Amino acid sequence: MAIITLLTDFGVRDGYAGVLKGVIWKIAPDAQIADITHAIGPQNIIEGAMALDKAAPFFPDGTIHVAVVDPGVGTQRQPIAARLGDAFVVGPDNGIFSLLLERAESRRLPIEAVTLDKPEYWLPDVSHVFHGRDIFAPVAAHLARGVPLMECGSPHPHLAHLEIPKAKSTHAGWLGQVMVVDHFGNLITNIQVDQLAGKGEPVVMCCGKELRGIKRTFGEVAAGELAVISGTMGELEIAVNQGNAAERLGAKVGEQVEVRFL
Amino acid sequence: MAIITLLTDFGVRDGYAGVLKGVIWKIAPDAQIADITHAIGPQNIIEGAMALDKAAPFFPDGTIHVAVVDPGVGTQRQPIAARLGDAFVVGPDNGIFSLLLERAESRRLPIEAVTLDKPEYWLPDVSHVFHGRDIFAPVAAHLARGVPLMECGSPHPHLAHLEIPKAKSTHAGWLGQVMVVDHFGNLITNIQVDQLAGKGEPVVMCCGKELRGIKRTFGEVAAGELAVISGTMGELEIAVNQGNAAERLGAKVGEQVEVRFL
Amino acid sequence: MAIITLLTDFGVRDGYAGVLKGVIWKIAPDAQIADITHAIGPQNIIEGAMALDKAAPFFPDGTIHVAVVDPGVGTQRQPIAARLGDAFVVGPDNGIFSLLLERAESRRLPIEAVTLDKPEYWLPDVSHVFHGRDIFAPVAAHLARGVPLMECGSPHPHLAHLEIPKAKSTHAGWLGQVMVVDHFGNLITNIQVDQLAGKGEPVVMCCGKELRGIKRTFGEVAAGELAVISGTMGELEIAVNQGNAAERLGAKVGEQVEVRFL
Repeated sequence: MAIITLLTDFGVRDGYAGVLKGVIWKIAPDAQIADITHAIGPQNIIEGAMALDKAAPFFPDGTIHVAVVDPGVGTQRQPIAARLGDAFVVGPDNGIFSLLLERAESRRLPIEAVTLDKPEYWLPDVSHVFHGRDIFAPVAAHLARGVPLMECGSPHPHLAHLEIPKAKSTHAGWLGQVMVVDHFGNLITNIQVDQLAGKGEPVVMCCGKELRGIKRTFGEVAAGELAVISGTMGELEIAVNQGNAAERLGAKVGEQVEVRFL
Repeated sequence: MAIITLLTDFGVRDGYAGVLKGVIWKIAPDAQIADITHAIGPQNIIEGAMALDKAAPFFPDGTIHVAVVDPGVGTQRQPIAARLGDAFVVGPDNGIFSLLLERAESRRLPIEAVTLDKPEYWLPDVSHVFHGRDIFAPVAAHLARGVPLMECGSPHPHLAHLEIPKAKSTHAGWLGQVMVVDHFGNLITNIQVDQLAGKGEPVVMCCGKELRGIKRTFGEVAAGELAVISGTMGELEIAVNQGNAAERLGAKVGEQVEVRFL
Repeated sequence: MAIITLLTDFGVRDGYAGVLKGVIWKIAPDAQIADITHAIGPQNIIEGAMALDKAAPFFPDGTIHVAVVDPGVGTQRQPIAARLGDAFVVGPDNGIFSLLLERAESRRLPIEAVTLDKPEYWLPDVSHVFHGRDIFAPVAAHLARGVPLMECGSPHPHLAHLEIPKAKSTHAGWLGQVMVVDHFGNLITNIQVDQLAGKGEPVVMCCGKELRGIKRTFGEVAAGELAVISGTMGELEIAVNQGNAAERLGAKVGEQVEVRFL
């Protein structure tokens, strides 16, 4: 029984995400469907790529991830499906799969992709503004039914790749930035905590604050206090125990974060 | 394996929607359940009718749609279940199924309905304020198990019908209105784009703006520019490429939209 | 086919809740998963306990409820799994299961619990900040696969219990408080309507207003009028027909509610 995940910027109000499930079950009645999120910021491809990268590795091999953050819907950008290592992806070729692609490349896993140019795997009528419903969901469902990837379109030699800002090593330590402000107000950075080992006690600077040391978890500081921790994917994360770090520091996505060592 | 969809104004915070799934699976353990939306404006039956009408046609034949926007819960309005062409519906008889009813009538598909007056298909205790949990979800689950529709209640000869505002043809073109402001801020009107064909270049007037021509998709105008497009169901839609048309124009549901021809 | 429910304070934006489904299906591919809510106020254990208590009784026997409102993640608080009567629960031992525990105790149903101390039932790598993904979801999935509860850890003799404020009987009637302001703005109190029977006509006092009598349903007062009704679980509830009682009265969680009799 195949698993299909959905990640979009559709919101949950209008039923746009619900419709995808109808389309999928019409073609693949047994598919199991999980919503990852439908609250990606409108047209924010990078935010979508990062959310997908945090969720996809926890799904079973063979899971089909449909990701639709698609400002270029109906234009030149190609609709694609791809195998990126253990997972399949379906969506616009606009970089939303960049991090999954990097992940597969870095592990030298098999990668293959097709341009979705075979209307027999789409809905009969295709809107120019809703490829999620009319192309991506049906193709995902056909994959779930066992249609081979290469059957769904023509070879697509080069997948779009968006540059996601990476932290830089400096002579004093690391220079990175806030990538995500999550639901709790935690500031999730692009600095990996395991890269800080063995160089002395780290001091994290953000919004004019200096925070010494990496805590194991929120509860190692008093309620209401700032702490630097290792986040859910090992990222350096700035949090307030039982509070909201973004509000406390007035920090937003893009805020500079620096690490030095004592 | 039967499919049940859920569309309500319950929101997602209190668990009211989650409870419906427990009730359904207790009766029909194999039912597949899809949330269409739980974010219909409180008591906004017309908004619910429109969201259901956009989603239901994409589900497999035989899908059971539970729709609960129910300001009259526990009063004179009848609880009903009906077959409207290829789909089943369960909910209050307050007009929330008006558009699915029109759809079935216009295609001369079979229509039959029952008043839900057989407590053996409900939960044992029925709250006067939560028929979604106590009547509609259990009846949907019994339908999913194969109980015939006409078994669930007494014949219900006449389904409530809410008048949803329709666009009017004028000597100069069309006069309609904004029906939905969606998550992206797109203004979805009740004018169908295919009715505008062959009469010259359309000019769309809304909030004092005049917009010439129908674009194929958002990306045909520059980012931040207004465009008139054909929406996900072929409706005339006013959008801003990668922006929010409702904010740009200060437009709300009910705003007048006029089309003339050059 | 086992059912697993999810109740968290994760929100729906970041994909934290979606990830749990991947983890579960990797271990128990056939599990059916229902979201109860992911919108519990951050770290609000009492709110989580109340939402769970309203939903869990409507799920089939044997359902596994994963509840993660977990300010103490990674600290001294123990991760647990328990059987509370007909249901299983998995989460932090911080009181979030208090009301389900009370429910099982009051019916003298079997209760048994384990501290989750067997890493073979967790994900291989455990983050100190995301036990939902790394411990609770995998343990729930192993339970769903049929692993016996007592196999998942060591006996846990005493489950944490949070005192949820109860209404008090006074010489004049009852003194309680608003426990939840729901999505509709209804004020749900900790006074049970069936305890008011046979003592004369009740008068409910809240925010300086006096409301006479308990209505059967919202629609017994005019649109826009305040009404006291019996809520979805039989609680005394203050509502505005087709309106928002919290806004009308300026009431919040914790607001005092008094009942006297005429």
